[in-house]
Parts: sequence; structure tokens; C-alpha cells
Amino acid sequence: MKKGQVTIRDIALKLNISISTVSRALRNSPEIKLETRKKVLAMAEKLNYSPNVVAQSLRVNKTKTLGIVVPELASHFFASNISGIQDTAYRRGYNVMICQSNENFEQEKSDIRTLVSSRVDGLLISLSRETVSFDHLQNLIDREIPFVLFDRILEGLPVSTVTVDDTLGAYKVTRHLIEQGCKRIAFISGPKGMYISQKRMAGYEKALKEEGIPLETGLVKHSDLTVEVTQSLVGELLDGPERPDAIFAINDPVAIDVMKFLKAKGMRIPQDIALVGFTNMPVSDALEPALSTVDQPAYEMGRLAANNLLDQLMDPDSFEPKNIVLDTELVIRKSSER
Amino acid sequence: MKKGQVTIRDIALKLNISISTVSRALRNSPEIKLETRKKVLAMAEKLNYSPNVVAQSLRVNKTKTLGIVVPELASHFFASNISGIQDTAYRRGYNVMICQSNENFEQEKSDIRTLVSSRVDGLLISLSRETVSFDHLQNLIDREIPFVLFDRILEGLPVSTVTVDDTLGAYKVTRHLIEQGCKRIAFISGPKGMYISQKRMAGYEKALKEEGIPLETGLVKHSDLTVEVTQSLVGELLDGPERPDAIFAINDPVAIDVMKFLKAKGMRIPQDIALVGFTNMPVSDALEPALSTVDQPAYEMGRLAANNLLDQLMDPDSFEPKNIVLDTELVIRKSSER
Repeated sequence: MKKGQVTIRDIALKLNISISTVSRALRNSPEIKLETRKKVLAMAEKLNYSPNVVAQSLRVNKTKTLGIVVPELASHFFASNISGIQDTAYRRGYNVMICQSNENFEQEKSDIRTLVSSRVDGLLISLSRETVSFDHLQNLIDREIPFVLFDRILEGLPVSTVTVDDTLGAYKVTRHLIEQGCKRIAFISGPKGMYISQKRMAGYEKALKEEGIPLETGLVKHSDLTVEVTQSLVGELLDGPERPDAIFAINDPVAIDVMKFLKAKGMRIPQDIALVGFTNMPVSDALEPALSTVDQPAYEMGRLAANNLLDQLMDPDSFEPKNIVLDTELVIRKSSER
Repeated sequence: MKKGQVTIRDIALKLNISISTVSRALRNSPEIKLETRKKVLAMAEKLNYSPNVVAQSLRVNKTKTLGIVVPELASHFFASNISGIQDTAYRRGYNVMICQSNENFEQEKSDIRTLVSSRVDGLLISLSRETVSFDHLQNLIDREIPFVLFDRILEGLPVSTVTVDDTLGAYKVTRHLIEQGCKRIAFISGPKGMYISQKRMAGYEKALKEEGIPLETGLVKHSDLTVEVTQSLVGELLDGPERPDAIFAINDPVAIDVMKFLKAKGMRIPQDIALVGFTNMPVSDALEPALSTVDQPAYEMGRLAANNLLDQLMDPDSFEPKNIVLDTELVIRKSSER
């Protein structure tokens, strides 16, 4: 795809109408008023628009296959997303192929290229922790390859997204810790640019503010989600002048790394430091102590994302992007009960 | 692929020489003696052999992509296999695409078809718990599509395999439990036809036999690896006339299901019942009690499988299948120390 090639998006922007209206107008859909069709055709001529042959060939030669890109497979959360996608896809006659980006931006781009080369009919993508630009996603839009973003999304693109209410979930965690009498609540977050880091930080801040607890920047740490960095950040918190009495970890895998480190340092959970995660991995209640966490409907997220994409494939002309936000549930266990 | 079409395998069988010799002879490789080349060509003519066009086209149009089929992604073991494969593939200039069979035989066949349709250059396959026949694998051989089997394999095919020494691993577990004073050691196995069920059963039996402990069939249970069936089988063991004093679970996920059930029933681990798994998932030492298990080099298995497949792709003519068997290590933790 050459930069600068005119797409239906350009036509839509110029006329200030939706992409799907332009798409339908160009196909002479009777659903679109004659006047609009004429305007679209005139603008298409003016901009020297020619339909994308690759995209058309993709549309004609259906492979009945969906591509999935996730940051990592060694995560129960993403594995459950995938199961939700896959079960839904099979029920509707589609196979799925999966790539993992290993939380690497270059790999994510390469994964998308590989799946597109395999002529998948559409994509379901959860972004890597490094992804902060979206040329590669804009490129899919320009080529008219349908995709849905889930969990790790970028806002502002004209595509469907499926997330949980990350802010509300983090708010519930922080409120719960305040109610347990915790005064110095640390937050082990992910990289600053990551969607879930920002949203969960917002919920953490909101709960502190409501209770008149000032935000201490020294209590907020950004891990790259590896065990090494997470544990060295917890080390910094423990060695600081005033220790936290609670740690909120951005997800359960990070919480487990925190738990192992605290136990190795002889800290008692929750007596010395209360601990809460976010995911509700099946193993979280078999830990010692059982981990308080936020239950995310991972399978349901996958199911909804797949249904949205498949609806789009069935009827591209009448499709409009949706932002689906699911609720979460705080699960209180021993790791935070004081 | 029609049944009955003549392949180079048929020629090899008739002449009692290797497939790769036939392949090289048909390409007039100077490495093969003229006499052998003549014999192969004569047999090819006699059997009315014609080269497989699909396979040839696959060989010419390299996609530089490998396909992986695993039973499930929500398993740290298979996720680590995949990481080992993927890192190795990238280093050698290949992408990977992954499908999961969900432990379902029909799905496994569909996954392989999907990946072959996407024209992957080769496949790495770990079989579902239901897979006991191998027409779908023979079909790949007939079409000259290279593949390697790992962990969940079928023996007797002329392809490379990568496994751990499952029998020795299970033997080490059983001996350890006997040394801890356990007298009635139950084995929660997987489906009877599954490769790892058979190999681990053999190790369990060998250790009992060495110590003169008779094999009690009532202590061997076959789970389909779901939490429901596993826990109902443990229920049967607990309700039996004479309870086991130890449980060896075929893998860590099953061991975690057993652990949760035993704790819910008020049983103390290891005092009432000792417990050992097989995998060494990272979470296994954060459990209460920490889980004894067998460490499997999952990443290394993936790395070796990928290197073997890539060697085969680089130089198909001189390739001969290998059976790679890796050693395991018994990791003793609190769940089995009495």
C-alpha cells in the first residue's frame, strides 16, 4: 500500500459522512439517497479514487478464517479471550489462526502482515505493551480489512472495541483497600502508554481523591510486566523511607510476582502488606494467601469481539463500529482482608 | 488427495530404502549411486508415480511461515513450547501461526487443513487427547508437507519427534512418594490412548514393581483432564474403602484441580494425602502447599522441534527423522514432604 493513495476514508472525511455510507454509495446501494451517491461519486472522481484491488480480492476470496493477535499466550486471560473468539467463530463456520506479539511492537506489525498474507477475512487484535502509534492499524482501515480491538486498545480509531470498565475496576480495588484501613496504597502499573495502565491509574486516583488521600507519585511504579522489573520495583517500595501497607498490582501475573517477592522477604500478607490483583486467574484462589482480585469476563470479551467482527463480515455495508464496555467484579479473598 | 495415489513413500517401501533416498534419486542428486537412481526410476514407472503438484508448488512458493497446532493455549506448558518455537523461528527468518485443537480430534484435523491452506512451509504438532489414529498425519507425509511432532506424539511415523522421558519422570515421582513412606499411591492419568498417559503409567508401574508393591487398578483413574471429571475421580478415591495416602497427577493443571478439591474437603496436604504434579508451572511454588512436580524443559522442547523442522526445510534431501528425548528433573516441595 503506497502512502498517499486515496481511500474511501478520504472521501468520507471530505464529505463529513461515515465510511460505511461512502462504501455503500460506491456500490450503488439503494439504501443511500441518490443525492448522496452523486456527491460521493463526484468526490471519488475529484480525488482520483480507485478501488483497492487487494481489498476487493480479499472480499471475493473468502478464506473463512479469522486472525488473532495477542501480546502473549502464556496468560490465562488472553487464552480465555481466544477460547471465546474461537468457540464463537466455529459456531459461525470460521477457523482461527493466532499470532503472539511477545509484547513487541515490531513483532505485532509482522504478525498482522503474516495473517493478512494468509488472507484472513478479518482480525481481532490486542495491542502489545509497546504499541503507542497506529499506522499499522490505519493501514488495515485503508485497505478495508475489517478488525476489532479488544482489552489493549487504542482509542479514536473508527473500529469496534471490547474492553472492561478498567477505571471502575481499579476504583473498586482502591476503595476496598481504603476500607480495610490501608493508608499507603502503592500501585504497580504497566508501561505509561498502555491503555490499561492509564485507565486503571484513573480509577486508583479517583478513589484516593474521594477520600482526600493525596496522590504520592513515589507509590506509583511502572513495570514492563516482567518478573525482574516488577520485583525490583517492589524492592524499592520496601526500602523506601515509608513502606506501603498495600499493593495494587495491575494484573494477577504481576500480583503473583509481587507475592513471591514479599514472601521471600518475610513480609506477611495481608498483615504487613495487603495485596490485590486484577484478572481472576483460576489459580488465584489456590495461592497462599488466596489473592483478592478483579474478575474480568475474558471469555465473554472474546465472544463479543468475534460476534462483532463476524457481523461486520456478514454485512459490511450496514456496519457501524461499537465500543463495548463490560463490567467487572471485585473478588475479596484473604490477601487483602485485615 | 485421493486415497491410493502413489507417493515416494510407496516407492521407498517397495525398494526397502529411505524416503529421502527416493526423493534425492528422483531429483537426480549425484549423492545417490547411479544404480539406485535407476532402480528408483524403474519402480516409479512401474507404480505409475507422478510427482505431487501441490507439494511441489508449496516447495516453490515459500511463505516463510510455520504452523503450530497445540491442544490448548491456556496451558503454561504449551505456551512455553510455542515461545521456544517462535524465538527460534524468528531468529531463522520465519513467522509462526498457531491453532489450538481444544483437545478435539476433528478440530485438530481442521486446524491442520487451515494452516496448510495458508501455505505454511511446515508444521509443529502436539496431538489432542482424543487423537489415536493418524490418517491426517499420513496425509501430510503423502503430500510431502514437512512436520515435527512434540510432547503429545504418535509413535511409528517416519517423522521427527521431541518428547521428554515421560516414563523416567513418572518413575522418579513414584519412587519419591514411596521413599516418603506412602503406601497407597493413586495415579490420576489422562485418557488411555494418550501418549503421555501410557508413558507415565509405565514409569508409575515400574517403580511400584521394583518395590514389590502390587498395582491396584482401583488407584489408577483416567480423567479427560477437565476439572469436573478430575475432581469427581478424586471424590471416588476419597470415598473408597481404603483411601490413598498419595496422589500423582499427570500434570500440574490436574494437580491444582486435585489440590483445590482436597482442601475443600478438609484434607491436609501432605499429612493426609501427599500430592505431586508434572510440568513445573511457574505458579506451582506459590501454591499452598508449594507443589512438588517434574520440571519439563518446555521452551527447550519448542526450540529443538523448530530447529529440526527448519533444518528439514533448508535441506529436505539429506534430512532423516530424529527422535529427540529430553531429561526431566524431580522438584520436591512441601506438598509431598512427610
